[in-house]
Amino acid sequence: MLGVRQPKIYGHSSLKDVKLLCEKEARALGLLVDFRQSNLEGELVGWIQDAQASVNGLLLNAGALTHSSIAVFDALASVQIPAVEIHMSNIHRREKFREMSYVSLFATGMVCGFGSYSYVLGLRAIYNILTSRQQ
Amino acid sequence: MLGVRQPKIYGHSSLKDVKLLCEKEARALGLLVDFRQSNLEGELVGWIQDAQASVNGLLLNAGALTHSSIAVFDALASVQIPAVEIHMSNIHRREKFREMSYVSLFATGMVCGFGSYSYVLGLRAIYNILTSRQQ
Amino acid sequence: MLGVRQPKIYGHSSLKDVKLLCEKEARALGLLVDFRQSNLEGELVGWIQDAQASVNGLLLNAGALTHSSIAVFDALASVQIPAVEIHMSNIHRREKFREMSYVSLFATGMVCGFGSYSYVLGLRAIYNILTSRQQ
Amino acid sequence: MLGVRQPKIYGHSSLKDVKLLCEKEARALGLLVDFRQSNLEGELVGWIQDAQASVNGLLLNAGALTHSSIAVFDALASVQIPAVEIHMSNIHRREKFREMSYVSLFATGMVCGFGSYSYVLGLRAIYNILTSRQQ
Amino acid sequence: MLGVRQPKIYGHSSLKDVKLLCEKEARALGLLVDFRQSNLEGELVGWIQDAQASVNGLLLNAGALTHSSIAVFDALASVQIPAVEIHMSNIHRREKFREMSYVSLFATGMVCGFGSYSYVLGLRAIYNILTSRQQ
Amino acid sequence: MLGVRQPKIYGHSSLKDVKLLCEKEARALGLLVDFRQSNLEGELVGWIQDAQASVNGLLLNAGALTHSSIAVFDALASVQIPAVEIHMSNIHRREKFREMSYVSLFATGMVCGFGSYSYVLGLRAIYNILTSRQQ
Amino acid sequence: MLGVRQPKIYGHSSLKDVKLLCEKEARALGLLVDFRQSNLEGELVGWIQDAQASVNGLLLNAGALTHSSIAVFDALASVQIPAVEIHMSNIHRREKFREMSYVSLFATGMVCGFGSYSYVLGLRAIYNILTSRQQ
Amino acid sequence: MLGVRQPKIYGHSSLKDVKLLCEKEARALGLLVDFRQSNLEGELVGWIQDAQASVNGLLLNAGALTHSSIAVFDALASVQIPAVEIHMSNIHRREKFREMSYVSLFATGMVCGFGSYSYVLGLRAIYNILTSRQQ
Amino acid sequence: MLGVRQPKIYGHSSLKDVKLLCEKEARALGLLVDFRQSNLEGELVGWIQDAQASVNGLLLNAGALTHSSIAVFDALASVQIPAVEIHMSNIHRREKFREMSYVSLFATGMVCGFGSYSYVLGLRAIYNILTSRQQ
Amino acid sequence: MLGVRQPKIYGHSSLKDVKLLCEKEARALGLLVDFRQSNLEGELVGWIQDAQASVNGLLLNAGALTHSSIAVFDALASVQIPAVEIHMSNIHRREKFREMSYVSLFATGMVCGFGSYSYVLGLRAIYNILTSRQQ
Amino acid sequence: MLGVRQPKIYGHSSLKDVKLLCEKEARALGLLVDFRQSNLEGELVGWIQDAQASVNGLLLNAGALTHSSIAVFDALASVQIPAVEIHMSNIHRREKFREMSYVSLFATGMVCGFGSYSYVLGLRAIYNILTSRQQ
Amino acid sequence: MLGVRQPKIYGHSSLKDVKLLCEKEARALGLLVDFRQSNLEGELVGWIQDAQASVNGLLLNAGALTHSSIAVFDALASVQIPAVEIHMSNIHRREKFREMSYVSLFATGMVCGFGSYSYVLGLRAIYNILTSRQQ
Repeated sequence: MLGVRQPKIYGHSSLKDVKLLCEKEARALGLLVDFRQSNLEGELVGWIQDAQASVNGLLLNAGALTHSSIAVFDALASVQIPAVEIHMSNIHRREKFREMSYVSLFATGMVCGFGSYSYVLGLRAIYNILTSRQQ
Repeated sequence: MLGVRQPKIYGHSSLKDVKLLCEKEARALGLLVDFRQSNLEGELVGWIQDAQASVNGLLLNAGALTHSSIAVFDALASVQIPAVEIHMSNIHRREKFREMSYVSLFATGMVCGFGSYSYVLGLRAIYNILTSRQQ
Repeated sequence: MLGVRQPKIYGHSSLKDVKLLCEKEARALGLLVDFRQSNLEGELVGWIQDAQASVNGLLLNAGALTHSSIAVFDALASVQIPAVEIHMSNIHRREKFREMSYVSLFATGMVCGFGSYSYVLGLRAIYNILTSRQQ
Repeated sequence: MLGVRQPKIYGHSSLKDVKLLCEKEARALGLLVDFRQSNLEGELVGWIQDAQASVNGLLLNAGALTHSSIAVFDALASVQIPAVEIHMSNIHRREKFREMSYVSLFATGMVCGFGSYSYVLGLRAIYNILTSRQQ
Repeated sequence: MLGVRQPKIYGHSSLKDVKLLCEKEARALGLLVDFRQSNLEGELVGWIQDAQASVNGLLLNAGALTHSSIAVFDALASVQIPAVEIHMSNIHRREKFREMSYVSLFATGMVCGFGSYSYVLGLRAIYNILTSRQQ
Repeated sequence: MLGVRQPKIYGHSSLKDVKLLCEKEARALGLLVDFRQSNLEGELVGWIQDAQASVNGLLLNAGALTHSSIAVFDALASVQIPAVEIHMSNIHRREKFREMSYVSLFATGMVCGFGSYSYVLGLRAIYNILTSRQQ
Repeated sequence: MLGVRQPKIYGHSSLKDVKLLCEKEARALGLLVDFRQSNLEGELVGWIQDAQASVNGLLLNAGALTHSSIAVFDALASVQIPAVEIHMSNIHRREKFREMSYVSLFATGMVCGFGSYSYVLGLRAIYNILTSRQQ
Repeated sequence: MLGVRQPKIYGHSSLKDVKLLCEKEARALGLLVDFRQSNLEGELVGWIQDAQASVNGLLLNAGALTHSSIAVFDALASVQIPAVEIHMSNIHRREKFREMSYVSLFATGMVCGFGSYSYVLGLRAIYNILTSRQQ
Repeated sequence: MLGVRQPKIYGHSSLKDVKLLCEKEARALGLLVDFRQSNLEGELVGWIQDAQASVNGLLLNAGALTHSSIAVFDALASVQIPAVEIHMSNIHRREKFREMSYVSLFATGMVCGFGSYSYVLGLRAIYNILTSRQQ
Repeated sequence: MLGVRQPKIYGHSSLKDVKLLCEKEARALGLLVDFRQSNLEGELVGWIQDAQASVNGLLLNAGALTHSSIAVFDALASVQIPAVEIHMSNIHRREKFREMSYVSLFATGMVCGFGSYSYVLGLRAIYNILTSRQQ
Repeated sequence: MLGVRQPKIYGHSSLKDVKLLCEKEARALGLLVDFRQSNLEGELVGWIQDAQASVNGLLLNAGALTHSSIAVFDALASVQIPAVEIHMSNIHRREKFREMSYVSLFATGMVCGFGSYSYVLGLRAIYNILTSRQQ
Repeated sequence: MLGVRQPKIYGHSSLKDVKLLCEKEARALGLLVDFRQSNLEGELVGWIQDAQASVNGLLLNAGALTHSSIAVFDALASVQIPAVEIHMSNIHRREKFREMSYVSLFATGMVCGFGSYSYVLGLRAIYNILTSRQQ
């Protein structure tokens, strides 16, 4: 399970907390998490392109790139694993330029607005998708 | 805990399944659920207005009214309990007229795209909001 | 004189106050008021359609339906009695989706922004229209 | 054959005339008609949802809801029988807000602008669709 | 009765079928049909201008010109006979640039979506308009 | 009480009538009215700026400037007394460029559509605002 | 004959030339011209309002106010004499904000793009309108 | 002097009148007129392309093609002689789709709204342009 | 190999050059070219409709019709052979109304901006498409 | 050096302060300042037109007219001296109707958001432009 | 000859194929190719800025950055060598957000829709531009 | 004092000049400047995020990212030090896509259009903000 995220809107200490929260929830669900963050669009694009070969699902908080990056859109279009879109804030209540999400066009679903707990719900959503398929 | 929903996009048998799923998850979380559904905008508006006095949180799938009902908007504006928006489908990938959600303007967060499992995640989100506040 | 209104944006106690205020002003003007309220679009539409036969004027606060109901528009188009549009708040200073009013397309005039006193001014406007015509 | 319609834009006497006209034409074609009308969106939605099980085709004049009801859209999306959209007036020559029709997105075809005779033509269209399929 | 049409979206054989269908229906109704088709906007405009003097009604399928030809619009504006707009496909379900119809701004009504049977219904509509007037 | 107005849309005789009507109503309410009119945007702006120091409320019919004058908007933004917007016609039923009102963005409320009687209702609205505050 | 104009886009010397050109052409046509110019919207509005009583036609170059002044629009709406719109430049080839003309909504016709000769053609147009009427 | 025009909006008799009026005015000015009309866009385009070699100026009423023909636009772009745009009606007061004129983007000026007298004024405008250049 | 083109934007001599250039390149590639040009939309539409039966590929420069002709769109929709869109200029750097291309919605690809050499590249593109398929 | 400004958004005392601040800074730079303010668009337009003959540069705070006055635009278009646009507030963070500035289309540069200190920076900018040219 | 490209929409193996194809075609034309690819906008911008000094032409497939990167636009604006825009897919038939191309605003021409063969045609286009200039 | 800038629109030599100019002006004002430039959005975002802890003010020329980078927007939203927006050109007179500035939504003010002297004025603006606060 790959957990790619973009930590632009909060500091480094809270980033660690989110990572710990994800890893704890993942252990409870029996999942392995590869938690990554980057400020660079190119690096994020590369991780998504590589995800196909290495993980079963994608939990993606693309931060500001959610709304502007056609490159992220193209990367998601090239992988076939399930993706879940995560936002700590409720993006529907923020600035108008956050209305459009390139990630949503590919993600199975979205969880937003519950702070770091959005990650926990997102992990459960991924888990549900993967276990439903195996049956 | 009030669970209001609008069962327009699937038949009565699946409505029962969602109800059972919600009640089972609620029991696991120690919550009481009042599961309701209606085809009438007026009735839905009345339930939201009454929710303030009778429940601690609102799990709301307003179906087609999500995108067109200013009356639902006004009802949500008049209550102060936390609300979580639920959709079985990922509304960001559907018709353009589903883009705008009056419910999102008041909801703490949204869960969408995971079928009936969206309700389970929504209940967990409500539970997390209520227990975080009590501390 | 028919006083149709839509009490969605305030509670039942204030609804009674508005009713009393209207009846008191009506007595002072020598008018009879039939004060009604409903949450249902269909019921509101029926009242407007029947108004032609039973009352001399229409004082209409269509609440949220003001901005979304083409059915209210069609009902108003089918009656020939004077109508005055009433809003407790100044709708021009609220959300953008309250900009368009289907009621305004038929009403003689509008009074808005003066709370429950908007009803008093609306009754006086109706009274002025009716007495001006008789001369 | 189910004939659902929304009689908002004309009085009760003409509604009866339309009903008689439909029944007369239906008899000539050897069809059975279940002629219904309602002011309530919820009731209309329910009839459409039930149409799948009980009739072979749907003749639908959704009146003002044609242009505003996503709930009608969702109901039509859930049935698989042929539907024909009917309007007494030519909606393309009326107000701009009547331009968009949610019914058109599902209907096989549209007949509009011929007054109550639109229903007669609509019945013939349904008849043609059903008899063409049987061959 | 003039039957002008624009056969751009199907081949010559089906054009003959439509012509035969129209003539058969016209005979049943006691109408004479002058069935014409052209690829040239100028010729179509000329036929419409001449229709006033030679026929009682106009059954018009302007094909692609429906949506782009202001010249057709001006020609229709200069004649006073009833016109019925015909489309074989349901233009409301096709490309966005087919949304606007210059023909609709003058036609009494529209029949669309029933293939070549749209012509039959259109002839009946014209017949109904002409016989209603004579009474 | 300051009564500023812009008499562009009717002649001088009716302007006097409106003035008399205002003064009569003001006497009945125990108010003093300073009735002014000007064709010059700059003069109107100056009066609004000075209103803060000299009057308790502002009854404003800005005529054509209602829809185009950002200078009027800035002047209103700089005063803290209640303002009521008046129009003799129902501006919601006129040209599209009268839709936006810079005055509405600051006025407590609006009265429009009742001819010169709009001024009477406006004076009563101001009176109600001022007396409600004093309590 | 009243010749109102707004000399903003060229200096005073050329203004005199235009005046002389107009007076010379007027003499040739047997017309009397009252040539005026002002920088003030209020003054221009007043002249238009007074034109009804004093002149037979209006030749109007409203300069920059053409595109922004609703007050000019309202003034033109209140007079019943023929008006001809004049522009020295071809306003259709200039900035986008010159596209909309409030004067055009009332003028019989427009002459633009021929420099000061536009005035000569405008005078002839007025002359033609006035002499055609008298017959 | 070439007089190209598009006679779509009036019958053949008035077309002759316009031709006579143009020829009479041309004789008075000492100009030779080649008066042409066509319903076909291709023919009109060809005439404009050939105008460069054969005439000194172009008086153009492109009728409905004014607003829709990029081909006319391209033809005008390829000739270097002065062109004057003519319309019998004031196109600024007609339908919104007549707002944009491809001809205006190349014409020196426009005369519109004076019926057939627009042609007379247009000829004078051409004459003025040609004689001013020669000096 | 059919080479349809629309020679509106350059004279007849250069048209011959383009024809020679195409024929020379075609010979080098072993292709037969049927080079045609027309000013008439109807003729162009007919050629496209007939192309299916007579040629293997379509090299199309529709000139001004590229951006306005729904009839060309419908004709292209009815053929199944590969089409390559050609423009001598780079249409992306020209007027805004050249932005939309109906031809692009069906063409395999586009070559533009290289003057008459665009035709040479277009022929090579067609050749590559045809030879790739045969393998 | 001409310092034209529009003191609409603050009172007379602060206007004096700005004047003193400008004069003090001008003395330090060795510039002469002609500081003017007016509420009247016509007067402001006149000053700009006269600036060409009397001053070397223009420091312009057009207040509300910045966003609505095409007359100011035309006046600026007729002078050839450098102009610097000044705003006390950061207009990019205010109402949407302040987004467009007619002054910006001619000004060399803009300084905004620093309160009265914007004038000081504007004077330095003018000084820098003038002294750079002289070299 | 510099060949810059952005390999986001296909894997590394096909990237090699494109490189080989380019080098083979370049050898045939007697050109030297410097084939580069990068995921980083900054690196791509740097290469374009340096191209002026080191190569004679630019073959550019900017991938997703084509539609969003103003930085690429600024870089292209600063170089004076001919640029050819390349896309493997026909971008005119893809998502709406691919409609606008910053690269097109500077490129001499575009080749798109022919897969990797687009590069071959692009190289030929560059070759044609360079050899035409030398003559 | 941190001086972040984005040197995309001019070469390296001028970048040095700007740096020297800033350092000279800073010395005169008694400020320390940390002058940085980068082509990478991620690096720029990092510098802004770190600015809170290390400098007292931010002078920011974000180049092309000004208009497209939501990530820069988010970074600015997370720091509380005053920021001044700088542009060498007057961005209001350039392409339409430079109209919107994400930096403006947070900056105290903007200086643009004065070439490298914009930096000098920006430093003075920062100095004025900081010294005004200390009093």
